[in-house]
Formats: sequence, structure tokens, C-alpha cells
Amino acid sequence: MAPSPPPPLRAGSLVAVVAPASGFDREELFRGLAWLSTRYRLRVDGRVLSREGYLAGSDASRAAVLSRAMLDDDVDGIVCARGGYGAMRILDELPWERFAARPKALVGFSDVTALHLVANARGVPTVHGPNVTGLGRSITTAERASLIATLEGAAPPPWTRLEVIVPGEATGTVVGGNLALVEAMAAAGRLVVPPGAILALEDVTERPYRIDRMLTALLLGGHLARAGAIVFGGFTQCEPGPDGVTTDAVLRERTRGLGIPVVAGAPFGHGAPNHAFALGRDATLRGGTLAWA
Amino acid sequence: MAPSPPPPLRAGSLVAVVAPASGFDREELFRGLAWLSTRYRLRVDGRVLSREGYLAGSDASRAAVLSRAMLDDDVDGIVCARGGYGAMRILDELPWERFAARPKALVGFSDVTALHLVANARGVPTVHGPNVTGLGRSITTAERASLIATLEGAAPPPWTRLEVIVPGEATGTVVGGNLALVEAMAAAGRLVVPPGAILALEDVTERPYRIDRMLTALLLGGHLARAGAIVFGGFTQCEPGPDGVTTDAVLRERTRGLGIPVVAGAPFGHGAPNHAFALGRDATLRGGTLAWA
Repeated sequence: MAPSPPPPLRAGSLVAVVAPASGFDREELFRGLAWLSTRYRLRVDGRVLSREGYLAGSDASRAAVLSRAMLDDDVDGIVCARGGYGAMRILDELPWERFAARPKALVGFSDVTALHLVANARGVPTVHGPNVTGLGRSITTAERASLIATLEGAAPPPWTRLEVIVPGEATGTVVGGNLALVEAMAAAGRLVVPPGAILALEDVTERPYRIDRMLTALLLGGHLARAGAIVFGGFTQCEPGPDGVTTDAVLRERTRGLGIPVVAGAPFGHGAPNHAFALGRDATLRGGTLAWA
Repeated sequence: MAPSPPPPLRAGSLVAVVAPASGFDREELFRGLAWLSTRYRLRVDGRVLSREGYLAGSDASRAAVLSRAMLDDDVDGIVCARGGYGAMRILDELPWERFAARPKALVGFSDVTALHLVANARGVPTVHGPNVTGLGRSITTAERASLIATLEGAAPPPWTRLEVIVPGEATGTVVGGNLALVEAMAAAGRLVVPPGAILALEDVTERPYRIDRMLTALLLGGHLARAGAIVFGGFTQCEPGPDGVTTDAVLRERTRGLGIPVVAGAPFGHGAPNHAFALGRDATLRGGTLAWA
């Protein structure tokens, strides 16, 4: 039986800031916190500011801060400071069972995809949206509105005029996030693509041949065959090598024979805009429009 | 029941050159062919010289040339022109069953890891060694000797003075190759690490945090738990990012708690030297020495 979904946030809800992955620019974090604090009460554990190589502190410290936020009944939502890398290192140290029993909104993207996939696989919806440092960079009114809407249980406006690679219509659970993380989680045996899912994928600084390799791995692994549709977001700084093959060409070539609707250019990912949306909840793709349930 | 191993080559054996993955520098290919031709008769299908973006011709063309070589009873061995990327795209188009029934030596590395893993999973040993273009670059007498020894059924000299990360002793089937390909094949559900295997891993142009991510994915997926030992080869141009964490530190940190012997600095990979060795056959690691069965 699917657990109850996380209760929607409202103005004044308590949001915990966690750093499951890489360290970050403190100025960006503070600016992001400043914006979040205009609507929500914030709890920021000092350990969030730790640094250990490319990680925001030791595995034990990152897992402890996130676990506490996951289990604390006073906390209404959790927003990740930054992606980068590191969530997979602590995946098995987190209290997923108790979290699924009393879930709360979990926000982030990029490396945070690892957390989304585990939560979604347990039937817990999460929020694909800017990390705190992203909120601290230039972000539009529409991006902020989509985050607040998604957190507070109102469906954000549908995405329209997406680039149609394969036309069609599909309704399914939205899962996915960062393609490299989706591949890594597949390698880890932790990728669950529900039958008929709408697979959302974005990436950053990957060569087109590597995007080909990742999609081919998901294809061979049967993961794409379970999807009911694919929605590509931004593929930022995924420029051609000397051979000139573009990422756009790879996305088209690898998916046009799947027999499912495919669109590209959806407004999420490492570039602008990065609109928030719910993972683990239904959406409907029809032509170039994706509407949230 | 395991199939018969490929018969050893001898001077004058017929070697087919195939290009399952990316296109390459023709001069390097010709120089590699020149060296191979000093010992073996060569068959080079003209389609090997095709180019299509980052691939050495269409999937159909690459698969046809390789399939023909795999099935032709006149061909004693197969050497890949280059890695790069592309073998995974044609993996399911190849006649693995008939190849396993009458196997022959298959040589290459890097992207060719995908082919090795499928062959090894079917019980067919293969040869991890320079691709033809690698043979066409500066390559030492010892590297050439290791390739000829491995191809012709003589165990090459043991690797000694490896850097011991975790001391110990293990005998097992050697599998692996390029770490990124091993991860991609795990994501594709095609990675088979036999119990007690000696897992050989190398990579090129990956940031340390990405090597962490790949090893963590294999760890979470249970693949490292099946290994009896790990032998790291070259990690070429895997330089630290601004955080200063080295690849060497990542290799140590991710493996020292596994409870199996681990060594690094083995002479294979994208740097020099790249000594040939048999995949899918037994070896024994004892302290800093790896000896071939």
C-alpha cells in the first residue's frame, strides 16, 4: 500500500536545510536561505557548512543531519543545499522506512536525484526543484512560483510548447532527474521505473557520446521499455566534441524507436529556467504539453 | 558447462580487425596493422574505416563486420581498432551464442570492456590489451611481448611491486576493464562478477568524485561484495578538482573497508604501460604480486 503523501507546506512551515552531497559557496547558500525565509521558518544545522574534500562534511555528519530532518515531526519540509556528489554514499544510512511512514516534502535536484529515486521507489513523492544555492542565484519569479506551488500542493502551470520528438499522449508517474545519477542508481540496482512512468531527464557537462552511453545502458537494462514517455529537460554545457554530433541529435536518435511519446526542451535542469515539479506523482503528456495531476 | 577456451594463436594465425566503437586516426591504425602483420596474417574489412559522428560507421555496419569475424572459422583472433564509444550500441546484435560455442581470441580495452564482459559472462576468456591504434603508438617491447604471450597461450610475466592498499591473497577469475564501462554495463544489467573474482579496473579523464560515484554504485549494487580482490590499473588524467581530492585517495577510501585484498598501480590502462592479460581466466594476487594461472 502506498504511504500517505507528504502534507503540503504553507507559509510559516518549518523547512530544514540539509547538505547530503558536495560543499558549496556560502554566499549563495545565504542568499537562498534569505529568500526561503521570506516564506518559511528555517532550521539550518551548523554541520551543513562542513567541508571534507568534495563533500559537505563526513558521511556520518551528512547522514546525521539529513536523518534528523527526515524524522523530526516538527520539520515540514527538507531542502538540499546543493547537489554535486555524495548522496549515494549515505543512501543506506538514511531512515527510509520511518520517513515513508511519515513523509515530508524533500526538495533538490542533480545529485539529489539519488534521494528522489529511493523515496519515489517507496511511493513517497518528492520535489524536483532548485537546491538552496540555486535559489541564491538569479532565479525568476516564475521559478519561485513553481517551487511554492509544488511545495504547497497546488499544481504549477502546465509546461507548453515543448519540442516534440515523438508525438503522443501518456499519463504516468513522473520519475527521474539527473541522467548520470539515474544511470549510477541503475548500476546500484536502485532504479525503479514504474510501468508507464514519465521519465524526466536532464544533465550537465556531459559529452554527447556519454549521453548516448547512459541512454543505451538504460535501454539495454530494460528501464526505458518500462517508461510510458520521456521528457528531456536542459542538457547544459553538453557540447559536441570534434565529431560535431550534438546532444539534441543523440536524444532524438536514442529515443525515436522506443514507441513512446518523447519531448525535449522542458524547463528544468542545470540551466535556466529550472521550474519545480513533483516526482512520484502523476502527470499527463499530450503533444508538446505536460500537465501535472 | 563452460565452453572450450579459444585456441591459442601462433605466428601466421589469421587476425581480423574490427571497429565496434569510435572512429580513429588512420595513421595510427596503419602503424598498428604494420606491427601486427609482422607476426599474424590480417583481414581488414574496408568498412572498418567508416565514420558516422563519433562512431566507426553505422551500428549495422559495425555489428556486421564484428559478427562476421566472430563466426568465420578461418579467423583465429579478433583485434579491435579502437575504443572510444559504441560497443554497447551493438551488443545485442552480435552472435554471442555461436561465438561461445566456437570462441576465438578477442583483444581490446576501454570501450571494448562491454564486449569482454558479455564474453566473460558466457565463460569465454578474452584479452585485455591495446587496441590496434594503441599498437600504432609508442609501445614497448614488453607490452608487445605481453600481448603475444597472452594471445599465444603463454602466461605473461607476473606483475610485481604493485602498490598494496589492502594486503592479502586471492585466486579468482579476472574480470573488468574500464570502470565507466563496468558501471554502464551494471546499469544495463549486463555486469557479471563471478564470486571471488579479481576485479581489474582502470579509467581515463574522470574526476575523482566521479570515480567515487562509480565505485559507490558498484558497491551499492553488490558487485564489489562478490569480488575476491581488486586490482586498479592506470587512472590517466583523473586529476583532482579545486577540492584537491586525488583519485588515489578515492580508490583507497572506497575499497579499504571491503575486507578483500586491493592493489593499485597495475600496468594496464590508458597510460603507459598497457600490458596485455587474460580476462575470464584465473589469476592469483598475493601481496603486491599478481600472477596469471
